[in-house]
Amino acid sequence: MGAIKANLERVTRDVNDLAKIITPHEIGFTRISFSKEDRRARKHVARLMEEEANLTISIDDAGNLIGRRQGKRKAPSIVIGSHIDTVRGGGRFDGTAGVVAGLEIARLFKEKHIETIHPIEVVIFLAEEPSPFGISTIGSRGMAGKLSEDLLGSLKDDEGRNLGKAIEMMGGNPAKIIEAKRSSNDIRVFLELHIEQGPILFSKKIPMGVVTGICGIHRGKVEVMGKCDHSGTTPMEVRNDALTAASEVILALEKICRQLDEVVGTIGRIEIFPNSSNVVPGNVTLIMEVRSLVDSMAMEAVSLFRKALKKIEEERGTIIQFESEISSNPVVFNSKMVKLIVGACKRCHISYQEMSSGAGHDASHMASMAPTGMIFIPSKDGKSHCPEEWSKFEHICLGAEVLAETILMIDREETV
Amino acid sequence: MGAIKANLERVTRDVNDLAKIITPHEIGFTRISFSKEDRRARKHVARLMEEEANLTISIDDAGNLIGRRQGKRKAPSIVIGSHIDTVRGGGRFDGTAGVVAGLEIARLFKEKHIETIHPIEVVIFLAEEPSPFGISTIGSRGMAGKLSEDLLGSLKDDEGRNLGKAIEMMGGNPAKIIEAKRSSNDIRVFLELHIEQGPILFSKKIPMGVVTGICGIHRGKVEVMGKCDHSGTTPMEVRNDALTAASEVILALEKICRQLDEVVGTIGRIEIFPNSSNVVPGNVTLIMEVRSLVDSMAMEAVSLFRKALKKIEEERGTIIQFESEISSNPVVFNSKMVKLIVGACKRCHISYQEMSSGAGHDASHMASMAPTGMIFIPSKDGKSHCPEEWSKFEHICLGAEVLAETILMIDREETV
Repeated sequence: MGAIKANLERVTRDVNDLAKIITPHEIGFTRISFSKEDRRARKHVARLMEEEANLTISIDDAGNLIGRRQGKRKAPSIVIGSHIDTVRGGGRFDGTAGVVAGLEIARLFKEKHIETIHPIEVVIFLAEEPSPFGISTIGSRGMAGKLSEDLLGSLKDDEGRNLGKAIEMMGGNPAKIIEAKRSSNDIRVFLELHIEQGPILFSKKIPMGVVTGICGIHRGKVEVMGKCDHSGTTPMEVRNDALTAASEVILALEKICRQLDEVVGTIGRIEIFPNSSNVVPGNVTLIMEVRSLVDSMAMEAVSLFRKALKKIEEERGTIIQFESEISSNPVVFNSKMVKLIVGACKRCHISYQEMSSGAGHDASHMASMAPTGMIFIPSKDGKSHCPEEWSKFEHICLGAEVLAETILMIDREETV
Repeated sequence: MGAIKANLERVTRDVNDLAKIITPHEIGFTRISFSKEDRRARKHVARLMEEEANLTISIDDAGNLIGRRQGKRKAPSIVIGSHIDTVRGGGRFDGTAGVVAGLEIARLFKEKHIETIHPIEVVIFLAEEPSPFGISTIGSRGMAGKLSEDLLGSLKDDEGRNLGKAIEMMGGNPAKIIEAKRSSNDIRVFLELHIEQGPILFSKKIPMGVVTGICGIHRGKVEVMGKCDHSGTTPMEVRNDALTAASEVILALEKICRQLDEVVGTIGRIEIFPNSSNVVPGNVTLIMEVRSLVDSMAMEAVSLFRKALKKIEEERGTIIQFESEISSNPVVFNSKMVKLIVGACKRCHISYQEMSSGAGHDASHMASMAPTGMIFIPSKDGKSHCPEEWSKFEHICLGAEVLAETILMIDREETV
């Protein structure tokens, strides 16, 4: 059994208090990055960090809010963090659970008079969700050195304000954005607790997921070009219906991804022309994506999909074009970190499952600098990004205990 | 060989002149019903009717423009007609070809000093195409007694003007709309020449279609209700994807209608929620339609489609609801009229094909009052309702000759 028990009442209070700092009159729990509510919520957490955990607060040049606890030696920090911004109409746990867990660990260490060799930093990353500036994970990108002053000047929100100005309003320093860059010299490891946002742990009744990595995304545009015709006067045999061809495309991707392991594939977006009930559709555009932690599996799925497009094109005489749009590589977490967290789960007598993350997280960028580990807690019914999003406070506590255990092992044993 | 030859030069001139009376700065040939251009074009044709064919012009209470030629006896009229309003961005032949053919027949009868027992009426029906008031075939509905003063008061265009007022501006009399109603007492037969608006005659190189009737339309809404999920975090096996289920629905209708004779079926409209590339689609709405001249075949197609929906629902666990939306019965033309026109084609040595019309026409309503016959001429590449819509002037002339021959047979032999 892990030695340290988290305080359920305090964790519950923190999540519930943050759930009140939201934009009024919006559905669900809305705290868009850079908003007044986002700033208020950061101040609220900063006060708790200072008053309840004795952390020293700072904001780095990328606008990340950091609470720091001194270590016994001059050594790179053990960093724990997540985000508190939300999507519009989102829930109470996405991001928040991880920030509250980090804060709770710092409080527990203070209360138990645990002194670590390494400094501990609890981070609220800036703007993890898709932001008004068109990009997500802004804070962790900044910490990974992936933002430039030029980029901050060119990305603008609907009101014409640039990202640099917005970061400045959050306490960052866009002129020195490059100085936000951290490295393995000053970060020993990064750890994040997050809700799963999927159905696996909940349906299997497993309280903890040990994340092995973050899936890569292959996204592409499929254009299906048939021929518009009058729906009444055109016999079936002379039609070139772009929508029936597109339907075969949609089913082909489903079939391929059902047959392969460790791959999901989705066509979530469709545009059709002219979209009129009495016209045989002439053009359909689909956005497809394939995600996998194993890049070769994703490549295999995309390759089979391209073959299927060719076959449909030949059988129907409908022209089908495929264009790759974006592609992000999978991030496979340091295997020693996975083993360490698994060991912590075992010592805490918590059942766990190793799993990949289909969604992106700040941990993706942090993994480019330092050994990174991540744990998931169950999402009720797999729901997220909606007001019904729910996770158990007990699971946040269990997660904090597992991460505390992991931190102490790293601090003592230096095995990563 | 039919005795009467149409005047190619005159027919060409008429179509080309009408193609100039269009709304400026619109793509294609646009003459929306009730527009300034519609009124100008009606005046232009009325002048030709008077000056070149000695017809007496009137406008009935429903706003139809009628050119009348006296018969030798007091007898019901032989009516020929079509429309000259267009869809936005339409072509030069849809409707116009039939009005010019009617005018040409009247001119030929005058020139050849042919006196008929029955009066001849050449009609420009008001507003055949979908109008700003939400309904189509307004003039022929009025002549069939299907419009009421109440309806004319309640249907309004975007500017809030009601249909009654609009009919009044075209010379009709909305207060007396019910008096526009005609019957077999004063209409002997109705005849219409129209472009096919489909590919059959053009692809087979047959100059004439003898229309056996107008297809009925069964239209329905299909709602496919799955479950929204994150496209990255939701494994394939637990998804309930509304779009993949909808794809099976779309392909099922295609397969059913390909296997049945004399039926076409189309899904031309699709709405998807949330239509986001990283969300498994939760809801899809489709509009389906089935058309056939043979109602039992259409019913068979709809019944097979409902069975297919049931099967997809059972196999996928996706809820699928089907709701009939509109339904119009097929109109089967008087078989003696079909035979008469076939006889006229033979005597004129014109090859022909009997065929149904997948599109609606004024003839649908006229058939409720009097024996009705209709001929089609080829549409290049099957195209219609677009600027490229094209038919040969020679085919309009051939059509006028076949109709003239038909009229003379009816007038002499009284066989219908």
